[in-house]
Amino acid sequence: MIKELIQVLHLGIKEKKSDGVCIKLPHDSSIGIISTRNKFPAIPIIVNKQHLLKSEIKYLFINSGNANACTGKLGMKSARSYVRALSEKLRCAPDNILIFSTGIIGQQLPVKKMLSSIDKCSFQFKSSIRAASKAIVTTDRYEKWVVKRFKISGKEIEIRGLCKGAGMIEPDMATMLAFIFVDINVNKTTIKRLLKSCADESFNKISVDGDMSTNDSVALVATGSNSIDLTNKKNYHIVEQNILNVFKQLAHMIVSDGEGATKVCKVSITKALSLPQAKRACYSIANSNLFKTALFGEDPNWGRIVARLGSLSKVRYTPKDVVLKINGITVFMRGVPTELSNSCKLNSSMKNSNIDVEICLNSGKFDASMFTSDLSRKYVQINSKYTT
Amino acid sequence: MIKELIQVLHLGIKEKKSDGVCIKLPHDSSIGIISTRNKFPAIPIIVNKQHLLKSEIKYLFINSGNANACTGKLGMKSARSYVRALSEKLRCAPDNILIFSTGIIGQQLPVKKMLSSIDKCSFQFKSSIRAASKAIVTTDRYEKWVVKRFKISGKEIEIRGLCKGAGMIEPDMATMLAFIFVDINVNKTTIKRLLKSCADESFNKISVDGDMSTNDSVALVATGSNSIDLTNKKNYHIVEQNILNVFKQLAHMIVSDGEGATKVCKVSITKALSLPQAKRACYSIANSNLFKTALFGEDPNWGRIVARLGSLSKVRYTPKDVVLKINGITVFMRGVPTELSNSCKLNSSMKNSNIDVEICLNSGKFDASMFTSDLSRKYVQINSKYTT
Repeated sequence: MIKELIQVLHLGIKEKKSDGVCIKLPHDSSIGIISTRNKFPAIPIIVNKQHLLKSEIKYLFINSGNANACTGKLGMKSARSYVRALSEKLRCAPDNILIFSTGIIGQQLPVKKMLSSIDKCSFQFKSSIRAASKAIVTTDRYEKWVVKRFKISGKEIEIRGLCKGAGMIEPDMATMLAFIFVDINVNKTTIKRLLKSCADESFNKISVDGDMSTNDSVALVATGSNSIDLTNKKNYHIVEQNILNVFKQLAHMIVSDGEGATKVCKVSITKALSLPQAKRACYSIANSNLFKTALFGEDPNWGRIVARLGSLSKVRYTPKDVVLKINGITVFMRGVPTELSNSCKLNSSMKNSNIDVEICLNSGKFDASMFTSDLSRKYVQINSKYTT
Repeated sequence: MIKELIQVLHLGIKEKKSDGVCIKLPHDSSIGIISTRNKFPAIPIIVNKQHLLKSEIKYLFINSGNANACTGKLGMKSARSYVRALSEKLRCAPDNILIFSTGIIGQQLPVKKMLSSIDKCSFQFKSSIRAASKAIVTTDRYEKWVVKRFKISGKEIEIRGLCKGAGMIEPDMATMLAFIFVDINVNKTTIKRLLKSCADESFNKISVDGDMSTNDSVALVATGSNSIDLTNKKNYHIVEQNILNVFKQLAHMIVSDGEGATKVCKVSITKALSLPQAKRACYSIANSNLFKTALFGEDPNWGRIVARLGSLSKVRYTPKDVVLKINGITVFMRGVPTELSNSCKLNSSMKNSNIDVEICLNSGKFDASMFTSDLSRKYVQINSKYTT
């Protein structure tokens, strides 16, 4: 499917590296997009809103190295100008193209270089998904892409996804760029519904640093080559689960690649009084610097988890009913640490690269979970040197 | 005043270091206390609530090295036992004593050592405020104390304050221990009012890592030796301002000593639609890891401040009206960076140890400000090694 539809470019934003990707969507594709709700949205977010209203989307164009955010009228002019150049080259209307940018905020794009590079490109759409994922990275340590196949109604369906993201990762909206393609025929309403449910269970459940970007977008594209009856509930469920698995894998890659991350930790809250309360507690613990540095230090410092939980005035529970497990080992219950809270078993389990923290509030029936990374010296190093 | 009323002890919690302080309050003292609202309060917080209801407070007893938090019935038994020993030695009732603990969460106190040390101590109350502040530190790099004098109605009034705190610092309640003494005669209602207004403008306006401790307390004690008519508004204002200055100095010391901190940054939000909105924006920016690592890197990365502001769905303003100043230099307005946003003047100003960030929302008339520290590799190093 999409492997013949990718064109990687060198736009000249980064020196000597690929920094642009153009993806051609097959005729009859339908697309759903979720974008950041940041009040200072990047220019592409504004442009896409207009284009999505107007017409059929035929191309996605992504650049890395520059976010085209906080760039004002000049930033908009630059975007319009490269979109026009693309539309002439690709023989479509400008609003058939959606654009995505990622990189530094507040700097103007090198439009001349971009226009010249677009002009020179032959747009044969023969690049690999791997090359595309390499061209959209910023501080990512590795490229992130997934190809999965599954069978339904006797047909083999392929899902391809690629994404970028390592810093400024937080849920609502997932702070990164991600593009997932599935080669079935789906109408617009259904693609939006699939996108929302899959994003909520994947990209909206990861956090690296609690900062929300100006440029995040997730696009799910149904490229239309196989007809599956999705009004059949069983079919819908199979398709949704398979797409969700790809979303989850990509989300997991982002959090594993969290800037400077050495570990991935799943934080679960169980038996909360309400879903918002479960989510709030999850999010708060997952973003605690003291907890995240303890993770990095491979230190089962459950006291910091308990202290963080205790600070949440809006989460209701009886303190003595709280049970805290780390890597399946009960470390705190009835208001006091258990014998195992200071055990070799617990200490050595902290050396795992995947850590599991589960807090049962015993106050209701709602559960929530999310993935977070640890906070390392490397995170500080990366982020204290990003622009200068 | 209090310089003859301090007794420093070696309780045996820390090896070879002073780790206990007993402060004798003069007869007729009145005391106000604000403590953490954490739902897993340390044992001393629970004990003090009972003692404050019952009787006159004659002694404050502080230990460092162990928080006596999440220690359950055994922790309570330990507290009762050393309070009883103190009361026998000091010839008062157990509930004449307030206790404060700071240090590691979830470990039992070495009560036997403590009792033996209390038994051996002669309680001459001749230690210095400096020795006391040294005995209550945990991860602090330096001791924190202030002595100030001012004149009112022909009398010279002295204020002495000491505090500890470097990590788990966040407002509401200020996460540390602080004890401030003023040698005037004040009734209970007035001391509480003075304490609240001063704490709100000082300890409740600092943040190091957004984590709330289980043990925080601030005590303001009027030691009663000078009578000042505080029903006179002018007098009240003078006393309040002088006490507030001491509170602010202590709070500033805590944030300067923020774990691994190399800089102190004042974040101000001006012209917000409401005070809660101003505070929320202030707090959110002051706690952004991306912003804090940029501070550490001496990088005027205004894009991260704008992105963080943009992510706050509950703070109302028109994005193009926002004006952002760093160290007095306007870097962002009308939705775009100014020419100075990339200037040598701005870059070199980031080398200052005090950084000033001011965001004018131009949407109302409410202002808020708070102090935060940067996020350094050292913070990660300290906190990844704290218990193990």
